[in-house]
Amino acid sequence: MNDQERHARAVLTLAIEPGDWRLLALVRRRGPTEVLDELRRGASAHPLLQSAAERLAALDSGKELEDAARSGLRIVVPGDSEWPAGLDDLDEVEPIADRGGVPVGLWVKGPLRLDALASSVAIVGSRASTSYGEMVAGEIAAELGHAGVPVVSGAAFGIDYASHRGALTTSVPTVAVLACGADRVYPGAHRQLLVHLGEHHAVVSESPPGAAPHRIRFLSRNRLIAALTKGTVVVEAAVRSGALNTLNWAQQLNRVAMGVPGPVTLPTSVGVHQQIRLGATSLVTSGAEVLELVSEAGSYLLTEPRGPVQVRDRLRIVERQVLDAVPVARAAEATSIARVAGVGLREVRLILERLADAGLVDREGAGWRLTDAARVPPARAAGS
Amino acid sequence: MNDQERHARAVLTLAIEPGDWRLLALVRRRGPTEVLDELRRGASAHPLLQSAAERLAALDSGKELEDAARSGLRIVVPGDSEWPAGLDDLDEVEPIADRGGVPVGLWVKGPLRLDALASSVAIVGSRASTSYGEMVAGEIAAELGHAGVPVVSGAAFGIDYASHRGALTTSVPTVAVLACGADRVYPGAHRQLLVHLGEHHAVVSESPPGAAPHRIRFLSRNRLIAALTKGTVVVEAAVRSGALNTLNWAQQLNRVAMGVPGPVTLPTSVGVHQQIRLGATSLVTSGAEVLELVSEAGSYLLTEPRGPVQVRDRLRIVERQVLDAVPVARAAEATSIARVAGVGLREVRLILERLADAGLVDREGAGWRLTDAARVPPARAAGS
Repeated sequence: MNDQERHARAVLTLAIEPGDWRLLALVRRRGPTEVLDELRRGASAHPLLQSAAERLAALDSGKELEDAARSGLRIVVPGDSEWPAGLDDLDEVEPIADRGGVPVGLWVKGPLRLDALASSVAIVGSRASTSYGEMVAGEIAAELGHAGVPVVSGAAFGIDYASHRGALTTSVPTVAVLACGADRVYPGAHRQLLVHLGEHHAVVSESPPGAAPHRIRFLSRNRLIAALTKGTVVVEAAVRSGALNTLNWAQQLNRVAMGVPGPVTLPTSVGVHQQIRLGATSLVTSGAEVLELVSEAGSYLLTEPRGPVQVRDRLRIVERQVLDAVPVARAAEATSIARVAGVGLREVRLILERLADAGLVDREGAGWRLTDAARVPPARAAGS
Repeated sequence: MNDQERHARAVLTLAIEPGDWRLLALVRRRGPTEVLDELRRGASAHPLLQSAAERLAALDSGKELEDAARSGLRIVVPGDSEWPAGLDDLDEVEPIADRGGVPVGLWVKGPLRLDALASSVAIVGSRASTSYGEMVAGEIAAELGHAGVPVVSGAAFGIDYASHRGALTTSVPTVAVLACGADRVYPGAHRQLLVHLGEHHAVVSESPPGAAPHRIRFLSRNRLIAALTKGTVVVEAAVRSGALNTLNWAQQLNRVAMGVPGPVTLPTSVGVHQQIRLGATSLVTSGAEVLELVSEAGSYLLTEPRGPVQVRDRLRIVERQVLDAVPVARAAEATSIARVAGVGLREVRLILERLADAGLVDREGAGWRLTDAARVPPARAAGS
């Protein structure tokens, strides 16, 4: 990456609308210097370039780049050692909602090298989140953080905010990718978070410094969140949520697409449930499950939740039948137990001895009764 | 089905433990009359038969069957016109937890013909259910009922009870399959429900009249619930829940296995989420989704939930870019809009005219501003 090309890319970020995949593909094909030259030749050029050329003509790119440097932003471009390789996958896939392509560069505020995101996971979701969703997002983020996995999100209200916060309870980096310039504070209420990320981690944007958070730029931004990470977890999302666009990008990019279920009665879970039902999104309920899915096969072993293993779990069916027929209150003789159990008398006698060895039944006079250890309510062991 | 064979099957239900798949397979292979003869020859016969032979020898089968008839129970056996064909599938699959096989017959209390269950769905779940789970189970049951789909469950506390009750708010049959005799009331607190089902619908059991609800019989019972229905919906289930055994049978029998998600923070949803994650269980959130899965392809068309289609959804990306650049408060001129939008001036002028036709922008003096109709908070349309 020579300085001329690097400079061309910086200028191009000022002129090319983020996610304008046709222009971004042109830059990939012809190189940034040639495209910039063509833009500077003005509006008469390639029709694709007209808007960008007009935008470029209307601004003083030298001053813009100086301002950016003064406000502490740096640009990271393809070929830089910290360039996140995952972004190049955007060149291989179809646009979604007419957005796509490898960004010409990323504006970064903060000390974190972007290649630190190679093992990261995105957690995104509804802005109109519930306390349930925020709690789960925060816990998953913290679990990922404790496992050394950086968390990427969008710094929005709700799930994004809870995810950043959860990660911040650990020592792992957490990165916000914005739809506006990386120097801007959007939403304004998250000033403290964004300042903190800009000082200790990183705030990233494809938009140039000062750019406004236009609606369309959220769609462009979402593809970066998916491409920068190994997988995207959607925690809460209504049917039209932008988080589903991020999930869609994760699927398109062969990242791991994950969704956290919730009560079917909450509108904030409808979009997530729909995606899981459609089949391309895995249901996850914890950070451990996320780690299992995004890690190399076998490198993270999940312990499936189980109930405690009980003595009766190790019994054969016929032994359980006999045990079930042994009374709790008054002792019964083996013949009576055999009748109730529907098991032959000879076998019942043998089994009763084994159950006594296991501490499940006690002899009492000529009969047998359950020990305290054997008294488990039927509900626990075999019922529905 | 001649009378002798029918009688043999009735007697066999008294002697063979429900779900004893080795004996049930023997009956399928050799026929009920021959197996009964062998049982009557006594304990010296086939070692497999010993327990059943002893049990048979200990009771007066004639009297038992008379008692059964007196208490209003009838037996339904393979070959009867109302025999539910789905049960025969149990002959084709491996046992689970050492239970399996086609029952020799089913004891039924109630007027409903069992072949009415051909289109039925099972709803089962935790006894230690939450009000969330009970509400969802009841709603799904009622939705199925309104669509004419009978509901099968186990009359247990919690989800089973809520499912029967939900179905009873409609005119569809609902059937309880019990682990004890169909004449018994278990659990005792559900006397009213069971009496009602026995009078108007059906209570079904593989166990003979009077049989106790031994733990092991729940496992045998669960296979019948799965086999009698087109699919099983688990609403809430902890990790060790018996409802997962029913789900397991549904999978084994190529029925539709379905699970309703819930808050990941509730232990009652852990078992369900685990099953969905493992992949053989479909996530469902409503009766409509259940109907779609259990119906012949295309016969039930699900309307996917969507947000309202808005005018801006139909705009091209470049049109949205322009729209986003039109101010709300004070009107702006086209040149200013073009600069903000990053779109060429000539195109902006054309687009503004089209947006005005669509009622999204208004001319004001030399400039343009948004109409009320166009003011949608950014959160709704494109954000995360």
